[in-house]
Amino acid sequence: MSALPAAAIALAGRLFEELRLHTTDEPGITRAAYGEGEEFAHALVRRAGLELGLHEAVDAAGNLYLTLPGEDPALPGWIIGSHIDSVPHGGNFDGAAGVLAGLAVVAALREEGRRLARDLTVMVIRAEESTWFPVSYLGSRAAFGLLPAEALETRRADTGRTLREHMEALGFDAEAVARGEAHLDPARIHGFVELHIEQGPVLEREDAALGLVTGIAGSFRYRKARCLGSYGHSGAVPRAYRQDAVVAFADLVAALETTWDGLEREGARATITFGEVGTDPAQHAFSKVPGEIGFCLDVRGESPAVLERIHGELMARAAVIEQRRGVHFDFGEKTGSTPAILDASLRARFAASAAREGVRAVEMPSGAGHDTSVFANRGVPSVLLFVRNQNGSHNPQEDMRLADFAEAVRVIRRAIAG
Amino acid sequence: MSALPAAAIALAGRLFEELRLHTTDEPGITRAAYGEGEEFAHALVRRAGLELGLHEAVDAAGNLYLTLPGEDPALPGWIIGSHIDSVPHGGNFDGAAGVLAGLAVVAALREEGRRLARDLTVMVIRAEESTWFPVSYLGSRAAFGLLPAEALETRRADTGRTLREHMEALGFDAEAVARGEAHLDPARIHGFVELHIEQGPVLEREDAALGLVTGIAGSFRYRKARCLGSYGHSGAVPRAYRQDAVVAFADLVAALETTWDGLEREGARATITFGEVGTDPAQHAFSKVPGEIGFCLDVRGESPAVLERIHGELMARAAVIEQRRGVHFDFGEKTGSTPAILDASLRARFAASAAREGVRAVEMPSGAGHDTSVFANRGVPSVLLFVRNQNGSHNPQEDMRLADFAEAVRVIRRAIAG
Repeated sequence: MSALPAAAIALAGRLFEELRLHTTDEPGITRAAYGEGEEFAHALVRRAGLELGLHEAVDAAGNLYLTLPGEDPALPGWIIGSHIDSVPHGGNFDGAAGVLAGLAVVAALREEGRRLARDLTVMVIRAEESTWFPVSYLGSRAAFGLLPAEALETRRADTGRTLREHMEALGFDAEAVARGEAHLDPARIHGFVELHIEQGPVLEREDAALGLVTGIAGSFRYRKARCLGSYGHSGAVPRAYRQDAVVAFADLVAALETTWDGLEREGARATITFGEVGTDPAQHAFSKVPGEIGFCLDVRGESPAVLERIHGELMARAAVIEQRRGVHFDFGEKTGSTPAILDASLRARFAASAAREGVRAVEMPSGAGHDTSVFANRGVPSVLLFVRNQNGSHNPQEDMRLADFAEAVRVIRRAIAG
Repeated sequence: MSALPAAAIALAGRLFEELRLHTTDEPGITRAAYGEGEEFAHALVRRAGLELGLHEAVDAAGNLYLTLPGEDPALPGWIIGSHIDSVPHGGNFDGAAGVLAGLAVVAALREEGRRLARDLTVMVIRAEESTWFPVSYLGSRAAFGLLPAEALETRRADTGRTLREHMEALGFDAEAVARGEAHLDPARIHGFVELHIEQGPVLEREDAALGLVTGIAGSFRYRKARCLGSYGHSGAVPRAYRQDAVVAFADLVAALETTWDGLEREGARATITFGEVGTDPAQHAFSKVPGEIGFCLDVRGESPAVLERIHGELMARAAVIEQRRGVHFDFGEKTGSTPAILDASLRARFAASAAREGVRAVEMPSGAGHDTSVFANRGVPSVLLFVRNQNGSHNPQEDMRLADFAEAVRVIRRAIAG
């Protein structure tokens, strides 16, 4: 176990506080992708990086790279990074922890006067929270030139303006993104390291400060699904004549619960969530049989096979409900992401580092998606670390302890710098 | 079968068109209780009544009475009436048909130079649609001095102003309503007649122009119910740790479907409707386990015993779901109305009248509530007639044919005037 220069953690602590102070949006904090909060965070981290003497680069999509040059420029470098946007009214640590961990590692090396053989880049990734644009891993895909051109025409949920408009308003090069120009070359990356707060309760219950992620779930999403029935008077339309959209929707929820039961019996990992649900305020009434309900469906799974199976059951069960209830499901556009298996040997290196640092770390899967997926699926050896965090994530109550964060920084520093 | 003076139906047709013209609120029409649309309708009907030479009275709650005096003022009189408000974006005929049928009967009698032994009053009832104020049969209960004083403090759903404020703004006497001053005395009413469009598809499918209602369902309602769970990240919170409000709500819908199955097997009549449903836009996200969902529940039944049984099962099943899903149901305030059995001998008189007029009329229950309930429960011999209507009610597509309406007017005139 090695001491970590206190100044490195103090720097991170100060930056967390600056972020909280300037992006608070009660309840919680809001750092919209390509919005005011994300811009503030990029500027804050850039200033801190320049003060540490790092070299700065910004790619066409606005991802920020702050590099501590290594002794041998011919060697592929390390990247430590994460996103710094947040969901609306989210917490202060989701994303930001991974960026500030990178800065803290650099600050520790600087303070110790260490120089690495390889470049070490802190990457501040744009727009990971797909609540803003309906696109997964927007920034990291753009960094590899992998963002489909049509993603530039999607609109931000709150402003209604396109991604292209938002990028151009900030001076980034949407055309280069559309052409697929890559800033990152997988062959030039030795390893990618992302630290992220755990967004569930597992580490807290396992009494471990760190999680070593074995794989990242993929997903499919229907963000604008609707069940369409027929409105009628709640007292005057007998049951046999009803086309009740809410009852049909409840059938669909129950059907997917049955699907999930089956998956659990087989030990297959997945999550199924209807996060947003609502009848139409312009037409509904307490005394009307509901003729329409809108909903979001978010399904995540550890493998493409699990996702395909759930999708197949969703469609089959929806068809049965349509027949039975006289309704129609209009699922709308499907989006999603590919699962990622993470590099076992790099993970073993981090496990060994944790052991040497005396930090309890447990292996676990990630149900949530992370930019690490993109690096792993590009063939970059990648590691995703979870740091223990109270009260879940995507809410104002996120509560990572700075002591746990410091343990994570120690483990990363040792794994990278020996 | 008797001819009906064409002028009487032409008058009704003209008034329906005036109503449509002046209360259109696309899609459909809106006549808010104690609002602009209802006020317009009262003024229109009042003017038409005065042109027919009727005597006018208005009670403390703003119910309008237009009376054709009979030969013997000592005899209890007839009342033909209904409400003239509508749901938001509703149809033109719900309520208005009953008022204009009364005017058409009077117009026919006037044109024929007939004078009845008894007074004949057309009553225009206030605020029957409880979408505005969460109170059943507001106007007719106030006419009998039966409106609880606390109803005056309920707020209109759209304006947020109290019933008291709305009444006083229009010059009515909310204090007299609160004191329970009655305008109507059951002993002074020979019979109450309400014509209403059928709000379901039964008459259309039975190929009958008229329905003779045997009884009116009672109800209980929870208009502001909520299921409270806990928000979490949709990918990161494993199933066992979830408190998913949407899944728990779906369980409740399924549970009441099972209750309804049981009632149907026993031949008990009821309807169960969740007309408004929604997660909280300030907190929900497609990537969050939903921690809250709001909903309305409207249950109607032919007898107090059926209603009590459904309510008992609702509470028992909700408690089971709370245990299983780690959620809490907060049902909020319960409102409702009492079922009414309608007078069989008066109904027989209308059935005979229909037979003599050659109009096909079928007996049926009413799942929807109507002001007739209040008269019947006060011991007034009461008849509720349904007139065939296409496309249901409480929606812009209501489509009563004027020919069917004319048949109803013929049947009422014969039953009352011989």
